[in-house]
Amino acid sequence: MKAKAEPFAAVDVITTKRDGGTLSNGQIDWVVDAYTRGVVADEQMSALAMAILLRGMTGAEVARWTAAMIASGQRLDLSTVSRPTVDKHSTGGVGDKITLPLTPLVAACGAAVPQLSGRGLGHTGGTLDKLETIPGFRVGLTNKQFLSQLRKVGAVVCAAGDGLAPADRKLYALRDVTGTVEAIPLIASSIMSKKIAEGTSALVLDVKVGSGAFMKSLDHARELARTMVELGGAHGVTTVALLTEMSTPLGLAIGNAIEVEESLAVLAGDGPADVVELTLALAREMLACAGLSDVDPAAVLASGKAMDGPRNGTRYGRRGVAT
Amino acid sequence: MKAKAEPFAAVDVITTKRDGGTLSNGQIDWVVDAYTRGVVADEQMSALAMAILLRGMTGAEVARWTAAMIASGQRLDLSTVSRPTVDKHSTGGVGDKITLPLTPLVAACGAAVPQLSGRGLGHTGGTLDKLETIPGFRVGLTNKQFLSQLRKVGAVVCAAGDGLAPADRKLYALRDVTGTVEAIPLIASSIMSKKIAEGTSALVLDVKVGSGAFMKSLDHARELARTMVELGGAHGVTTVALLTEMSTPLGLAIGNAIEVEESLAVLAGDGPADVVELTLALAREMLACAGLSDVDPAAVLASGKAMDGPRNGTRYGRRGVAT
Repeated sequence: MKAKAEPFAAVDVITTKRDGGTLSNGQIDWVVDAYTRGVVADEQMSALAMAILLRGMTGAEVARWTAAMIASGQRLDLSTVSRPTVDKHSTGGVGDKITLPLTPLVAACGAAVPQLSGRGLGHTGGTLDKLETIPGFRVGLTNKQFLSQLRKVGAVVCAAGDGLAPADRKLYALRDVTGTVEAIPLIASSIMSKKIAEGTSALVLDVKVGSGAFMKSLDHARELARTMVELGGAHGVTTVALLTEMSTPLGLAIGNAIEVEESLAVLAGDGPADVVELTLALAREMLACAGLSDVDPAAVLASGKAMDGPRNGTRYGRRGVAT
Repeated sequence: MKAKAEPFAAVDVITTKRDGGTLSNGQIDWVVDAYTRGVVADEQMSALAMAILLRGMTGAEVARWTAAMIASGQRLDLSTVSRPTVDKHSTGGVGDKITLPLTPLVAACGAAVPQLSGRGLGHTGGTLDKLETIPGFRVGLTNKQFLSQLRKVGAVVCAAGDGLAPADRKLYALRDVTGTVEAIPLIASSIMSKKIAEGTSALVLDVKVGSGAFMKSLDHARELARTMVELGGAHGVTTVALLTEMSTPLGLAIGNAIEVEESLAVLAGDGPADVVELTLALAREMLACAGLSDVDPAAVLASGKAMDGPRNGTRYGRRGVAT
C-alpha cells in the first residue's frame, strides 16, 4: 500500500511563520495532525514554536490551531451529568494550590467540576503532583470512571486521558524543554484545547500576572485572558477570566505535600487569608457561570460541607484531623 | 562513576537568545559541545537556531560560536604541503559548478587546493553529488589519503572527514529540515568552521547575491561576506570575498551529471562565458591570496594544462573526449 503523500512540507510551514506570515487553515490543520502522527519531527515543531513565540499569531490562527488540537483527539460528552458543569484553570504560580480547596467547595455548592489537571510546568507546581503525595491517590481514570465519579460525587480531579487533545500532550512536553513555554498563542491553545475537549459547559480562568507568573505584565496577562475567553466562546463554553496577582507565593505552604495540608486547612475553615479569598472569588465566578449565583460559597465553606464530602458522615476538625 | 554535572541548562541558553540577549562565552562553548555530545537535543538546538535567526548574534558571539565548532573536532595541519594552500567556497546557487573547473585550474597554476566540499543544501546543488555521477568516484578519503593527494596532485575534492567540525555536521543537517538555513551567523560559522579546520592558509569566498541566492539583497550578502572575512582573519586564514550575481543559473547545464560535462568543457577551453568568467575571476583572487599573482590563469586554461592533470600524458579535446 502506497503511503498517502503529505499535502505540505514542514519547512514551508516553519518559514512562513518565521518570515512573519500568516499560516493558512490547511497548514495549521496539517502541521498539528502531522506532528501528532510523528510525520513532523520534534525539532521541526520546536523551530515552529519558537517562530510562533517571536512572530505571534492572529486571532484566526490561534482559533484554528486550538480547533486542530481538539480535533487531534476525542471531545467528552458530559450531557448525562445532571448538575451544571463548570471548571477552573489557573496559569500557575508558586504556592497556587487553589484547585484543591476550590473543587470540593464548588461541588458542595451544587455544581459538577470536571477538573482535568496537569503536572508542573516551568517553575510552577502541578495539581497532580500535589495530590500524588496522598498515599494511594490515583490520578489516572478511564473516561467511564471519570464520568461516573462526576455524576456521583460532583467533582473529579484527575489526569486528562490519552484521548483528549493528544497533540497538546506532545507539544506541552516539547515546549517545556525548548524555551517555548511563554508564547501566548501556544499557552492559550494548550489550555483551551484541553478544557474544551473535557466537555465542561463553563470555565473560569485564573490568569496570573506579576513577577512570579508566566505573564509578567498586565498587558500580556490581559491579552492571554482575552484570547482564551474568545476561544471558549467560539466553542460554546461560557468562559470568564480573572486577572490575579502572582508576585508573591500564594499561602504559606510551598511544596507538594504541605500544599495539600494547607488546602485541607482552608476546607476546615482555617488557612491563609489570601488562599481563602482567591478560593471564594473563583468559586463565586464559577457558580455564576453555572447558573448558581444564589449560592454563597463563603457560607458553604463555613458550614463544613465542602470538607465532609457528599456521602461521608465523618466530620473533620481544623487541619483536617478526623474527630 | 557519577556523570559530570552540566554547567548550563539548554532552556536557559535558548531563552537568553529568544529574549534578545547576548550568549556568554561559557554558554556558547557549552551548547555547541553538549549538542555534539547529544546532551542538548535536536529539538532544543533547532529552537535555539530559530531564535538566533530571528534575534541575530553579535560579532563576538559569531566568533566564539565558530571557534566552538572548530574545537568540536580536529584541525588539519597542511604544513607538509610544499605549495601554498588556498581554497574557495561558494554560498551556492543553481548551476554553480565552479569548483569543478576552478580546482584543477588553480592547481595547474601552482597552488594546492584542499577542497572539502558538501552536499546540496536547500535548493542548491552539492559538489559531491555532482562528482558522484562519475562512475567509481570516491568522495570519502581518510585524512592521510587527503594529505597525500594534496601533496602529489595539488588538488583534492572530497567530503570533510568525520573528525572536522562534527558540531557543524549535525547542525547543518538540522538546519536543513527546520527552516533555519538562512541565518547569517549560522551560515558564516558553518562555512568558516569547516574551512578553518581543513587547514587551508588562504580562502576565497564567492558570496552569491540575488533572487536565486540565500542572500537576496546586497546588504545581506555584504554582511555575510564581512562576517566570514573577519572570522577567517581571526583564525589566521587570509580570506577575501567576492559578491557575485546569482539571479539566473550559472552556465547552461543544471543537473549533477551535465554540470560535470559542462565543467570539462570549460577545462577544454570551451564552456559558457559566464562560467569561464567567474572561474577566472575566482582563480585570480585565489592565486593572489596564495602569493602567485604573477601566474595568469587565463593563459594556463588556454594551455590545456588544467585539463591534463599533473602526471597524465593524455590530452583531451573539446568536451572532454580523449584524443
